Amino acid sequence: MATKEAASSSKMTEEEKMLKGELYQAFDPVLLEQRQKAKLLCFQLNQTSPLEVEARQQIVQELLPNSKDSKNIWIESPFHVDYGIHLHVGDNFYANHGCTILDCNACTVGNNCLLAPHVCISAATHPIDPVLRSSGAEITAPITIGDNAWIGANATVCPGVTLGNNVVVGAGAVVTKSFGDNVVIGGVPAKVIRHLEISNEPKNED
Amino acid sequence: MATKEAASSSKMTEEEKMLKGELYQAFDPVLLEQRQKAKLLCFQLNQTSPLEVEARQQIVQELLPNSKDSKNIWIESPFHVDYGIHLHVGDNFYANHGCTILDCNACTVGNNCLLAPHVCISAATHPIDPVLRSSGAEITAPITIGDNAWIGANATVCPGVTLGNNVVVGAGAVVTKSFGDNVVIGGVPAKVIRHLEISNEPKNED
Amino acid sequence: MATKEAASSSKMTEEEKMLKGELYQAFDPVLLEQRQKAKLLCFQLNQTSPLEVEARQQIVQELLPNSKDSKNIWIESPFHVDYGIHLHVGDNFYANHGCTILDCNACTVGNNCLLAPHVCISAATHPIDPVLRSSGAEITAPITIGDNAWIGANATVCPGVTLGNNVVVGAGAVVTKSFGDNVVIGGVPAKVIRHLEISNEPKNED
Repeated sequence: MATKEAASSSKMTEEEKMLKGELYQAFDPVLLEQRQKAKLLCFQLNQTSPLEVEARQQIVQELLPNSKDSKNIWIESPFHVDYGIHLHVGDNFYANHGCTILDCNACTVGNNCLLAPHVCISAATHPIDPVLRSSGAEITAPITIGDNAWIGANATVCPGVTLGNNVVVGAGAVVTKSFGDNVVIGGVPAKVIRHLEISNEPKNED
Repeated sequence: MATKEAASSSKMTEEEKMLKGELYQAFDPVLLEQRQKAKLLCFQLNQTSPLEVEARQQIVQELLPNSKDSKNIWIESPFHVDYGIHLHVGDNFYANHGCTILDCNACTVGNNCLLAPHVCISAATHPIDPVLRSSGAEITAPITIGDNAWIGANATVCPGVTLGNNVVVGAGAVVTKSFGDNVVIGGVPAKVIRHLEISNEPKNED
Repeated sequence: MATKEAASSSKMTEEEKMLKGELYQAFDPVLLEQRQKAKLLCFQLNQTSPLEVEARQQIVQELLPNSKDSKNIWIESPFHVDYGIHLHVGDNFYANHGCTILDCNACTVGNNCLLAPHVCISAATHPIDPVLRSSGAEITAPITIGDNAWIGANATVCPGVTLGNNVVVGAGAVVTKSFGDNVVIGGVPAKVIRHLEISNEPKNED
């Protein structure tokens, strides 16, 4: 890191570094407290019966404050996030059992998005260099997913990825780079399997 | 969809459409109630200590009523299904930790089947067309797995797949099409890795 | 199996056979009791709030007695092992949500190792032959992971694998064979993606 950048970073809080994608210490007390709050809410969600729909919705609202205006969020347990406050999901968001979203940086998900079981969306990464990694320094990159995404079972979306609208991610796919609108992607790493012809643009009836 | 088909579908309940593989609305009240019953039983199973073997077995019997004559079912937590009533497993079924089976259509598993951790078997799918998908319409296809299957960790079995007897599915495989007897399959998507020479047919000693 | 070997095996306990990589019966009462003890501790861990840090650490110490001298072990829930007593992790071990480690044989993990969500490390395997597999006979092979490993989300490490120091395993990878130091591996099955130039040997400052 250049000296000037380092000087600039040193004035930033660990949270600011994290959200700017610079190396930061995840065990900073402020970040740890934020995570512990989210982990407690996830624990409470996962300990609440699926029949206590109201109680679950209240926990989800508290867990995802930046999605509180989004309608029709439905999350199955177990579900885990790192912070919750950096995750924004649109209307009609559905997460099936066993999804984990590491929102150490902005994770922005459009309307009408469906996550199949065991999906992992991770804005968290670690330095490839083992010396740096063992120092506890972490790094993040934001994830953006457009409207009408459908992400298949056991798939992983990696840090820094942007997906356009109407993207289908095949089961078990590992999405390591960005893709535009109207594609089916799959594989490890994910590649385009099919381009979609969209006859009517979604929501053009409004 | 042709007009005649649509007319025929309109007389069917959402459950009937679901089980016939036609487009259906998953948030139909009857289906929702069926799922909520199964989700509650899964929740109770996952909240029950692994040492309370009898209590767990009773919950499993209630969760999988069509498997009640099968001997020696052992399911580790967490475990989730959508309905339970459309899942039939044979004798000596074992599901390791974190398996999810979306039985929106018949999921039929033979005798002596082993699921490794984090396996997902999904009869549930969504339309590829984003307009249709965002309308909430879903679709299903049945899954059939023969005797003596062994499905590796983090593997996914996709809707409509039939696997023969003595099939080994490698870890992390995504099974998108059907395979016959006596094969080891693996990869994303899964392909045949090895044909097995079965010296003695299983159970030929009976 | 040769007659001499079989004779030798017959004098061994099922636990001894298991740890030597010979065919064994997992439902042996001694092994079952060991597993039930570990499963109960995992259940208690997963039922304990993430804010009860002390209580969780005590459970982890009891679950992983052979790692009790390792500093700074942090395990998110849900977490599951088969025995716990055959798992040794070094200092600064971190397991994210939803990891499962089947330690039916020695699973030895070095210092500074990070597991992303939904990782499965499995020393457990089954015979490929369906007749033998259906008899309930299982088999194991030890897993060794060096210092400074980072294993990506939804990845699986298979029985018998040894990984060197400073290995990064990509998300969704299935590690079916051993790799040396300083590599990034990925894919299904995992292959070398990149060789790492390690400028400073980790911890050479001590």
